[in-house]
Amino acid sequence: MKSKIKTPSESAAVLTNLVLPGETNMLNNLFGGELLARMDRISSIAAKRHSESYQVVTASVNHVSFNTPIPLGSIVKLEAKVTRAFSTSMEVYVDVWIDDPVKQVMIKTNNGIYTFVAVDQCNKPTEVPQIKPETEEEIERFDAALRRKQLSLILAGRLDPKDAHELKALFMG
Amino acid sequence: MKSKIKTPSESAAVLTNLVLPGETNMLNNLFGGELLARMDRISSIAAKRHSESYQVVTASVNHVSFNTPIPLGSIVKLEAKVTRAFSTSMEVYVDVWIDDPVKQVMIKTNNGIYTFVAVDQCNKPTEVPQIKPETEEEIERFDAALRRKQLSLILAGRLDPKDAHELKALFMG
Amino acid sequence: MKSKIKTPSESAAVLTNLVLPGETNMLNNLFGGELLARMDRISSIAAKRHSESYQVVTASVNHVSFNTPIPLGSIVKLEAKVTRAFSTSMEVYVDVWIDDPVKQVMIKTNNGIYTFVAVDQCNKPTEVPQIKPETEEEIERFDAALRRKQLSLILAGRLDPKDAHELKALFMG
Amino acid sequence: MKSKIKTPSESAAVLTNLVLPGETNMLNNLFGGELLARMDRISSIAAKRHSESYQVVTASVNHVSFNTPIPLGSIVKLEAKVTRAFSTSMEVYVDVWIDDPVKQVMIKTNNGIYTFVAVDQCNKPTEVPQIKPETEEEIERFDAALRRKQLSLILAGRLDPKDAHELKALFMG
Amino acid sequence: MKSKIKTPSESAAVLTNLVLPGETNMLNNLFGGELLARMDRISSIAAKRHSESYQVVTASVNHVSFNTPIPLGSIVKLEAKVTRAFSTSMEVYVDVWIDDPVKQVMIKTNNGIYTFVAVDQCNKPTEVPQIKPETEEEIERFDAALRRKQLSLILAGRLDPKDAHELKALFMG
Amino acid sequence: MKSKIKTPSESAAVLTNLVLPGETNMLNNLFGGELLARMDRISSIAAKRHSESYQVVTASVNHVSFNTPIPLGSIVKLEAKVTRAFSTSMEVYVDVWIDDPVKQVMIKTNNGIYTFVAVDQCNKPTEVPQIKPETEEEIERFDAALRRKQLSLILAGRLDPKDAHELKALFMG
Repeated sequence: MKSKIKTPSESAAVLTNLVLPGETNMLNNLFGGELLARMDRISSIAAKRHSESYQVVTASVNHVSFNTPIPLGSIVKLEAKVTRAFSTSMEVYVDVWIDDPVKQVMIKTNNGIYTFVAVDQCNKPTEVPQIKPETEEEIERFDAALRRKQLSLILAGRLDPKDAHELKALFMG
Repeated sequence: MKSKIKTPSESAAVLTNLVLPGETNMLNNLFGGELLARMDRISSIAAKRHSESYQVVTASVNHVSFNTPIPLGSIVKLEAKVTRAFSTSMEVYVDVWIDDPVKQVMIKTNNGIYTFVAVDQCNKPTEVPQIKPETEEEIERFDAALRRKQLSLILAGRLDPKDAHELKALFMG
Repeated sequence: MKSKIKTPSESAAVLTNLVLPGETNMLNNLFGGELLARMDRISSIAAKRHSESYQVVTASVNHVSFNTPIPLGSIVKLEAKVTRAFSTSMEVYVDVWIDDPVKQVMIKTNNGIYTFVAVDQCNKPTEVPQIKPETEEEIERFDAALRRKQLSLILAGRLDPKDAHELKALFMG
Repeated sequence: MKSKIKTPSESAAVLTNLVLPGETNMLNNLFGGELLARMDRISSIAAKRHSESYQVVTASVNHVSFNTPIPLGSIVKLEAKVTRAFSTSMEVYVDVWIDDPVKQVMIKTNNGIYTFVAVDQCNKPTEVPQIKPETEEEIERFDAALRRKQLSLILAGRLDPKDAHELKALFMG
Repeated sequence: MKSKIKTPSESAAVLTNLVLPGETNMLNNLFGGELLARMDRISSIAAKRHSESYQVVTASVNHVSFNTPIPLGSIVKLEAKVTRAFSTSMEVYVDVWIDDPVKQVMIKTNNGIYTFVAVDQCNKPTEVPQIKPETEEEIERFDAALRRKQLSLILAGRLDPKDAHELKALFMG
Repeated sequence: MKSKIKTPSESAAVLTNLVLPGETNMLNNLFGGELLARMDRISSIAAKRHSESYQVVTASVNHVSFNTPIPLGSIVKLEAKVTRAFSTSMEVYVDVWIDDPVKQVMIKTNNGIYTFVAVDQCNKPTEVPQIKPETEEEIERFDAALRRKQLSLILAGRLDPKDAHELKALFMG
């Protein structure tokens, strides 16, 4: 499997949906927990499209920011794409927009970064194809994914900060 | 508004999602009622994208067939597009596929036809742009939409079958 | 099984329920998708009561109209009855009312027509009892069911319109 | 309002529904909390039908027994009726059955007793019609409702056990 | 197992949660059925912590009062503890508070009493440890649990009121 | 408000709950999206207890790892505490355990770090009390929170890596 190389757009998955009253918080915006659940669903679909594996399992939510609240009644569009593949894991980027058909604009509200592990039928991690980024944004996210991976290993105590060359470069300039 | 003309693809909306255990029936397939609710959500989004109106209201579900069951764990992709616009109402076609990334196929499971009415902030029907179909399939669905409209009016007792010229032609050969 | 004959009222099933805030759309009425799911549940119960089979599977939603919105806080009553049985399938009619105990009226809001197939434990279609309609309304719906069946076969390309005698009669007068 | 007298059957409300996988507990039976929620919904409808008031509010669940588990895939029928009305409150009895169309039996699984208070638009308790029981079972439940009311007041410390004549008689015989 | 003795606080379980819009009734308070479901969940956890058994099954809801409505947006805290153990069953008391961090008060809104039966992997009732109450409140609830048990047996026709000594004493004084 | 100082334990909030079939993924473990939603709920309660503000809004999910799957039927305990307060925002740490009463162990499955902003009734950010950590773990998390804050500002392009002194120290040693 590992010799195979795929592009981020081959994994692209889109989830457009409404914000109904049963999915809001006290301020009449989409409830954060509901948005996290939708992001988890669509990013796991992108991971499965990329890995072509039996199942994928959420390993971590690396970062999700909530910059702009999403009001009741909005049309919300989530797009997930794999940014980089490691041995048996993949980083997935989810972009979230409000799609406003009246004003005819798409408002970027936030994004999130998830990591998934591909598993086989015995629930054992299995290798995934590598990623070849194409667009400028894909290349930028591909590079950043390695720094995030290093950071994540440092935080988990499994990598010495001094060995995280790409990440270290950020601070040394 | 009426003078404006839009294409079906301008209204296209996609909802990709999983089938989790809480969304199945006794046979471990996606529960019919849950699929109907998802189809209603995505087709109302297509209708709103086309109408650019304050809200759209489901007027009728014209036909939904369930040809192929959708098993637990599937990735389900729904795509909705407006097929034809009448004065203040729109017909929306929803196509449903199982997206199988392992076998790398998309299996068409069923489709549905919904009608929505566009309303303004006073909840009054409001005119919508007309549709100009582009592809062969869009043209075919555009033509069939008129026959379905006639049939619907006949069933509601609001059109004499003899005046449903397009529909009548089907039976007269 | 096929020699057995049952009446529509033997299959009658009733689902009375509230409209709570988590079940509404943006206009504070019962969300269309939620109503479709409730109609699917109660009509499948009527089909199962008629067929006495292992399971029933939704084959199609033939038509659901939404004439009157159902406001938040309403008591909604759904009643489903089998209208006609074919070899292994059944048509079910669902009537929906708002039950207003303060004004002491039942307001008919809409109805829907579903088709179910009876299956055995191997998931194979199995024969169902025939229907003998009793009331005037039941007889009318029994007759119309055949025309709807013909229409459905024509739309699926499995019946030549010229052979749909009962349906054709509508247009020829 | 108080001079009006109604029968229990005027308030009768029925909720027939399925047990789907998303509504079960670990033993593959209907989850107790889900059954309690359904019982609350249907008994509040019976209370509203009787009181003809603006709203009814759950005051207490007096007793719900769970004698027989309700397996996944069952058709469950709940029937609620007001058993007795006090000044501004009503006791409602809910009977629960599994409706088994294959074996053609109705299996009584359990019942529950709820108390509701009728309130007006200012959220103030409002008087409700009195109940005149008709059948033997209705009369028996009507009598028992008074003893339950006394018991409830004693448990809340608002009635001296010695003044609960009907209840006391049970123990003195 | 029976020789083992545990305290009520060893079984204590806490469920703090929000009241979101999708969980309210028409008066914008926590829906009664939702509160009953939450109480069932947390009290079954207390019962399982006490019994250390394979599963616990809800046997009855003995009494739940709803004294104070819980408004949308509240933080609701439920605390469940086993009050008394019988041979294979346990009584669990659930206390419910609104936790108001702005006013810095905990408002007691209501409580409920549930009974659970411990079962083994063959779904057969299994013995549970006995309870040794410690605080004054625990002792009071331990004593009352026996009277409630007697009452419950009387209501089920399985105990002669004259043999319910502890309960009878209440009325004889 | 700002002069006030509170401890992490003053904000502690606990959510113990079951994993029912409707909350699982394809591998019969708690669905990641559902766990994220529960973590969001309990961490927002901790933030509100600390801030004593009108509302709190999820600003970001900084990191959530999923080390150990949580099987169907588990008792899951979430505990959230504020680790550090900045001007109008708070970092909250959520620890997740499986509580296994049979084996009498608590198994740590994962944790998550959320950031909330306190807002007043006009939806404007409002100052929050400072945090004084007490235990060793609280002090460690308090210190790490500053490095995470710096990292988050760098990733958002609002802080030059060279000015992130505490974070930089990690890489320079």
